[in-house]
Amino acid sequence: MALRHYTLDFNLSAAADCPSTVRGLQSIFQEQEMTETVHDTEGHGYLATFVGKKGRFVILRVHSRGLVTIDLQCYEEDNTAQIDNLLDALEKKLENLLQGSITRIKRLPALTRGGQVDRYWPTTDDRLIEYDIDRVVYDEDSAYQNIKILHSQQYGNILVLDGDVNLAESDLAYTHAIMGSGKENYAGKEVLILGGGDGGILAEVVKLKPKMITMTCGNILDNLKGDCYQILIEDCVPVLKKYVQEGRTFDYVINDLTAVPISTAPEEDSTWEFLRLILDLSIKVLHQNGKYFTQGNGVNQTEALSQYEAQLGRLSCPVDFTKEVVCVPSYLELWVFYTVWKK
Amino acid sequence: MALRHYTLDFNLSAAADCPSTVRGLQSIFQEQEMTETVHDTEGHGYLATFVGKKGRFVILRVHSRGLVTIDLQCYEEDNTAQIDNLLDALEKKLENLLQGSITRIKRLPALTRGGQVDRYWPTTDDRLIEYDIDRVVYDEDSAYQNIKILHSQQYGNILVLDGDVNLAESDLAYTHAIMGSGKENYAGKEVLILGGGDGGILAEVVKLKPKMITMTCGNILDNLKGDCYQILIEDCVPVLKKYVQEGRTFDYVINDLTAVPISTAPEEDSTWEFLRLILDLSIKVLHQNGKYFTQGNGVNQTEALSQYEAQLGRLSCPVDFTKEVVCVPSYLELWVFYTVWKK
Repeated sequence: MALRHYTLDFNLSAAADCPSTVRGLQSIFQEQEMTETVHDTEGHGYLATFVGKKGRFVILRVHSRGLVTIDLQCYEEDNTAQIDNLLDALEKKLENLLQGSITRIKRLPALTRGGQVDRYWPTTDDRLIEYDIDRVVYDEDSAYQNIKILHSQQYGNILVLDGDVNLAESDLAYTHAIMGSGKENYAGKEVLILGGGDGGILAEVVKLKPKMITMTCGNILDNLKGDCYQILIEDCVPVLKKYVQEGRTFDYVINDLTAVPISTAPEEDSTWEFLRLILDLSIKVLHQNGKYFTQGNGVNQTEALSQYEAQLGRLSCPVDFTKEVVCVPSYLELWVFYTVWKK
Repeated sequence: MALRHYTLDFNLSAAADCPSTVRGLQSIFQEQEMTETVHDTEGHGYLATFVGKKGRFVILRVHSRGLVTIDLQCYEEDNTAQIDNLLDALEKKLENLLQGSITRIKRLPALTRGGQVDRYWPTTDDRLIEYDIDRVVYDEDSAYQNIKILHSQQYGNILVLDGDVNLAESDLAYTHAIMGSGKENYAGKEVLILGGGDGGILAEVVKLKPKMITMTCGNILDNLKGDCYQILIEDCVPVLKKYVQEGRTFDYVINDLTAVPISTAPEEDSTWEFLRLILDLSIKVLHQNGKYFTQGNGVNQTEALSQYEAQLGRLSCPVDFTKEVVCVPSYLELWVFYTVWKK
């Protein structure tokens, strides 16, 4: 069972004449045989609700300062043409009643609430985004997180972890960016990938004929060994510590574990400590001329990104960095990627 | 004056026990000193509205088949922390009351209704999209259309014509695609640009040292003549007809006039006729080895795109075509571009 929720809003240059506006719309609701209730708002404008057939429900608010809002809720299986006609009638009537003072009419695409497929996946800066998702391919809780694979008409399958859009089939731009945006020569190089369990980076780096790729991630890929790669089913921290002890170095370290955490209290957040630990170890195993690549976060997460950059200034080995802003198709927000190297 | 509209929805594997759910929440609304009205829905679930202080308004619906929806409307200047606390309390209480049968809890980012800056600009397939727009740079009606320039934190200035996102400062990908995606050699070539009044294509093609660019658009650019370009302040149709008569040809024709119209009745739609006329004339002025570039529409507009492709089969001169799907950052949907050439 799902609900469609329509909104129709009029911005006005002056307060609407409330009695005439209400009277003007009443005939439309009466035609629909809707039952009206007028509510006392204690001086905060006019508020009436209308209950109709088939679970239809309308809210009419004539606000005190230049705004009229209408909500219409109906069930998914309700007659779309009838609902559109009702909204058209309300819009047209209000246009007549309020003419001269209208500065904006806004009728948003209906929100689908409680739908079988959840199409709303907000950006990191909490903007409302509706995806063209048409089916749920997979939805399970692992020991660590909720894992969803959702199919989008334009982006293909999208991996969603704990409600965050992680990567879609359309997102070669992500993999390209976290590999250095095509400016690196991987041929004959030693590469370390931290995380990257979706296999995207591995698949692309392999094509560039490196000497050896070592990857640490969960036990998820079909082949753990190839001509030029090995996958260690291990937590990356002990692996990095071992490499530091052995003095082993890599030409490229690609950290695809997690985005920069969005938190205003970095000192208190264990995620930041984890991030700093891995960063410090990664730089230690980096060849003197090596490069460390990682994702940051959404470009509007300026505070989180600044905090990350502050961390880069506090590593045991001094580093320099550049950042790049990249459009990853399925993210619907621009994303920041970092390149870090030893000074 | 703007309204913030919050939604909180619970999907359930079975119908909620209505009396206990309602009773469980009532104490929260009573604490808020909200006035309750229970509405008769004629068997379509439980529906109660609650009017509170400062214009706050809540709708609680316990639907008959496994769905509970809550709406909370408050004014923009209302105390955000108080509202968040109220929603947290409702969510927590419902989690307790409904535990065991909850399949999804969805709390969307609040809709801002009637806000000074309109942040909602749907995609061509009518999906709800909230942009990070922070100010209106320009908003006027011309003789032909409404013209807005809106500033986005991440996309820079966005040109919005009659409510359609046209191009943003972030969108070099658009210009790049409609020029042939970097696969063409413009040096020494004759180029005709139809439309393109924002100047983006002209600026990029000029860099590639063509012999001459002729562009037809409105009188909007600062310079109408340059070393290798001239701008004709004319409708493109008479210009094209003149070129056909003169037998003049171009190596590249770039049509940046309009997207493929979304309409199910092409025969009856004058936009389609206009489009076919321009297409036919453009191919006529195309050099035997020339290329015609144009945008299509959003990748989900499969019907409109098919109709466009059908038009390509009906031109007076037979053509072949390819299409490419491109991510234009500010569009928040993938976009189709066409390359057309004479058979």
